[in-house]
Amino acid sequence: MLKGIIRGNVVSTRKKEELVGAKFMEVQIIENGAITDKYLIAIDSVGAGIGETVLVTTGSSARLALANSNAPCDAVIVGIVD
Amino acid sequence: MLKGIIRGNVVSTRKKEELVGAKFMEVQIIENGAITDKYLIAIDSVGAGIGETVLVTTGSSARLALANSNAPCDAVIVGIVD
Amino acid sequence: MLKGIIRGNVVSTRKKEELVGAKFMEVQIIENGAITDKYLIAIDSVGAGIGETVLVTTGSSARLALANSNAPCDAVIVGIVD
Amino acid sequence: MLKGIIRGNVVSTRKKEELVGAKFMEVQIIENGAITDKYLIAIDSVGAGIGETVLVTTGSSARLALANSNAPCDAVIVGIVD
Amino acid sequence: MLKGIIRGNVVSTRKKEELVGAKFMEVQIIENGAITDKYLIAIDSVGAGIGETVLVTTGSSARLALANSNAPCDAVIVGIVD
Repeated sequence: MLKGIIRGNVVSTRKKEELVGAKFMEVQIIENGAITDKYLIAIDSVGAGIGETVLVTTGSSARLALANSNAPCDAVIVGIVD
Repeated sequence: MLKGIIRGNVVSTRKKEELVGAKFMEVQIIENGAITDKYLIAIDSVGAGIGETVLVTTGSSARLALANSNAPCDAVIVGIVD
Repeated sequence: MLKGIIRGNVVSTRKKEELVGAKFMEVQIIENGAITDKYLIAIDSVGAGIGETVLVTTGSSARLALANSNAPCDAVIVGIVD
Repeated sequence: MLKGIIRGNVVSTRKKEELVGAKFMEVQIIENGAITDKYLIAIDSVGAGIGETVLVTTGSSARLALANSNAPCDAVIVGIVD
Repeated sequence: MLKGIIRGNVVSTRKKEELVGAKFMEVQIIENGAITDKYLIAIDSVGAGIGETVLVTTGSSARLALANSNAPCDAVIVGIVD
């Protein structure tokens, strides 16, 4: 998994039907306690908000965190770091 | 997912049969609102065009956005950013 | 797989139910005997602790090392290096 | 997918049985019309030759382009760019 | 796939049961005939030894080269380059 901070959200009205209702967040990756210049877009599954530090699962495993595990998604926020 | 801008299309006449009809687009990745020097080729599934900002799903999850989920494809445009 | 040293743990109280009980560790990658500036978060499956050198499996294969192979996880510590 | 130019082939006599007959090609990645310093080894599935510009699918999706979809392969040339 | 040279082996006594008997090798990646500073750990499936140039398959496809295709492994040596 990757650790990161949610920096913003991404709005997409025209998208695949399986992604309707998904909350897309832009996450800045943190490594060893320091922010990096790496970013990705992940779907939130735990009610996280901008500014929170989160755990992101990538790849095909990410879909297991969604209600619809057939959604074409490769990154999901699976936890909020305390 | 990755956010990016469609910069062009790629034409391939000789290709795997499962990819016939696919619209290949070259996408420049955007991170934190700034363009990067990273690019990939993705199949459009939402009617996106050159110059539009899009969301790209990569890996085996990408195939779930295609009519033929057995196509040998690893990146699909799944949404157009507003 | 990747070789790395466990540098710390990550605590997440609010997380996906399938990840309850998972021990998240921050691992610094080692290449050719030298530490790098690459880090990832992996779930421990072998009883490893901070400071130990470990092997990490990533991607969908990682889930095979967990009791719940449907957990939305993409990196697991699968061995402790002697 | 990635776009690239085939720079050479790789000969391996001792290999997994499922890979017998596979044509391994070294591909130099092209991004935004310019060559990069990134390379990978892909199995040809479309009759491509050295010097041709091709599309490469990576990851588990690559196997879908092979006659034997259980071959331990993670990159396949799936199209020749016009 | 990636091409590389086997630089050493990694010994892990305490590991997941599915990995018992696996021969872990540290492989230095070669691109365009030149060594790089990239390394990974792969399980040998073809009887390769230190100093040999090999092909490595990564990701979930790698497991198809192992006797136990449910082993939590993401990289396997699948061929020895002539």
